[in-house]
Amino acid sequence: MSVTGPAGFLAGGHACGIKGSGDPDLAVVATASGRAVPAAGVFTANRATAAPVLVSRSHLSASGGRAAAVIISSGNANAATGAAGRADAERMCSLTAAGLTCGAEEVLVCSTGLIGIPLPMDRLEEGIPAATARLRPDGGGAAAEAIRTTDTVRKEVLIRGGGFSVGGMAKGAAMLAPNMATMLAVLTTDAEATPVQLHDALTAGVETSFNVLSTDGCTSTNDTVLLLASGVAGPVDPAELHLAVGEACAGLARQMAGDAEGATKVVTVRVVGADSDGDAAAAARRVADSTLCKCSWYGQDPYWGRIVSEVGSCGAHFDQDVVSVSYGGITVCRGGVATMHDVRALQLVMAARELELVVDLGLGDGKGVILTNDLTHAYVDENMGTS
Amino acid sequence: MSVTGPAGFLAGGHACGIKGSGDPDLAVVATASGRAVPAAGVFTANRATAAPVLVSRSHLSASGGRAAAVIISSGNANAATGAAGRADAERMCSLTAAGLTCGAEEVLVCSTGLIGIPLPMDRLEEGIPAATARLRPDGGGAAAEAIRTTDTVRKEVLIRGGGFSVGGMAKGAAMLAPNMATMLAVLTTDAEATPVQLHDALTAGVETSFNVLSTDGCTSTNDTVLLLASGVAGPVDPAELHLAVGEACAGLARQMAGDAEGATKVVTVRVVGADSDGDAAAAARRVADSTLCKCSWYGQDPYWGRIVSEVGSCGAHFDQDVVSVSYGGITVCRGGVATMHDVRALQLVMAARELELVVDLGLGDGKGVILTNDLTHAYVDENMGTS
Repeated sequence: MSVTGPAGFLAGGHACGIKGSGDPDLAVVATASGRAVPAAGVFTANRATAAPVLVSRSHLSASGGRAAAVIISSGNANAATGAAGRADAERMCSLTAAGLTCGAEEVLVCSTGLIGIPLPMDRLEEGIPAATARLRPDGGGAAAEAIRTTDTVRKEVLIRGGGFSVGGMAKGAAMLAPNMATMLAVLTTDAEATPVQLHDALTAGVETSFNVLSTDGCTSTNDTVLLLASGVAGPVDPAELHLAVGEACAGLARQMAGDAEGATKVVTVRVVGADSDGDAAAAARRVADSTLCKCSWYGQDPYWGRIVSEVGSCGAHFDQDVVSVSYGGITVCRGGVATMHDVRALQLVMAARELELVVDLGLGDGKGVILTNDLTHAYVDENMGTS
Repeated sequence: MSVTGPAGFLAGGHACGIKGSGDPDLAVVATASGRAVPAAGVFTANRATAAPVLVSRSHLSASGGRAAAVIISSGNANAATGAAGRADAERMCSLTAAGLTCGAEEVLVCSTGLIGIPLPMDRLEEGIPAATARLRPDGGGAAAEAIRTTDTVRKEVLIRGGGFSVGGMAKGAAMLAPNMATMLAVLTTDAEATPVQLHDALTAGVETSFNVLSTDGCTSTNDTVLLLASGVAGPVDPAELHLAVGEACAGLARQMAGDAEGATKVVTVRVVGADSDGDAAAAARRVADSTLCKCSWYGQDPYWGRIVSEVGSCGAHFDQDVVSVSYGGITVCRGGVATMHDVRALQLVMAARELELVVDLGLGDGKGVILTNDLTHAYVDENMGTS
């Protein structure tokens, strides 16, 4: 499973002491050959950009889209750490390269955790050599374990194509929002592909998976999705690779939605009948990010008034006399007013672990979807403090 | 106090049975003369517009900016109720006009409460005549009491100018957000003024008070702020009236911020040094609406990384190497990185009932401010259900 599912990769997880708990906090993914292979990355759009994002972007650019390894630390984001933070991220790459005998610019780096605190470099100086010395062909699970922060379970995926596979791991439990907020994912494939093919497949895959997730509307400083191709399985149909990468991203995104901080419910907000796809996306995101709506889902309350109110104020074209709302296929609002429905059936829909709500704006063909969660007491608990 | 502070007004509160609790749910404000006087209104920008908003707008327009009375029901918003809802809102005005012997178009109407449920008109048919029969020159407090929904206290204000006064009442405890979400306010003055003067004063007052409040980023179907001028005190300095209306709005807004659903803290988010005032407002609103930041304030956690991350992703011009963040005057982040500070003093700042945080973007002269609250277990409780 995970990043060592596809042939040609080694991985491992290690506890170096960044996390006070002693849990694993350092993951390495590397090519089995030790040589750089085609790679691609998609990064956060946040202008508060963490040091490892700046360094990985620069390395991918300098290497012309090639990488031999990825080093990931969890428990400290190395964000809002200034020039010293950028030097620390570079040092993480050098240490990794030294252990693997590749070039430092062939190493990509990710960090996740608290913002504004310098990395404990003494621990990484010791930890990275120890971690690179223990890579295994079945180390994907250990790596997926080591990148967790508030995730309650590790997140792995393996998609098999015709003669190749795409594997991946991800972390992300809070702050999942527009443009991949606070999430890391590393994907690998044994398919042979160019950096450009990988970039196209990854960009498309991210757009319809991580970018339609929104847990709390917050976006992060560290979001990174990487894809490395060992080429061991030889050439493949680019369209098939495209599809497999998309499926791998979607699989990881679903796991993240199901493990959002304190959530009891995965909610799919689908908007149809909008004047445009842009309007539909804006409306879906507005509902998904509404604390009032999110609390009502937690309470299993089918009160649709809040949904109509959010859609009416999101800027999308809206006619309150033609909007309809349904939960799990049960229409509760039609033509902008309450409509008769099976109350008992609706209770069951609202109580389920997965909820799909559809808002039909009744205006055009525009449609959009956002995957989100409810807002619970446990979310408040998890976010009251940083410890 | 309240709307009967200024001369020339009567008011009252009545329980007609809209609320299951038996609490007062019907308020009337009327001119003592029974005649229409100059009036102005500012209404929600939500495209899901409640029936009473549509009717009040149309009445103000038809009367050329004059009104003799305002009828307000609480417990049911008469929103998402279609054509029948609009007829119900008109009927509320007719019933009020009949009791006061003014024209129905000289009555303005507000409702607040649940969306999507037809008004219990049988109760209003009985209740409105009973309420209009019991108006008193000291009825402002009773009216302020009757417009409460989840408000824990009634909200009243009385500002004395030179030879005139401005009084007001408001409700609003949840969904205080961009453009006056779910709030009602009725202001009165004994100053003599034209509808245009009132409209200018009210628009300006709302802009710097209710419109800088954001409790949870949600906007409502029913927001309405009304101002009636009896003229009993004769002509006044228009600039002074402008100022007094602004102060009255600000006073009510502060009371709303202090009584937001489940909040333990009033938080002022101030952004300075932005490239433009628009950037500063966007950044302040993004921080104010961030569930992560709001939970951290509840937990008295000075973790500023979330604030920088929100500002970096709000679309404003941003340079992470020059941003600084302070809480209650204690700078915790300077030049984009953590800075030494008095940890014990900071604990006291974070524990106080009022918190001011300042983000200095270090780029220009743009500034903006939003008044908001923390996100608590009690907020989740209040919004899990509709009962």
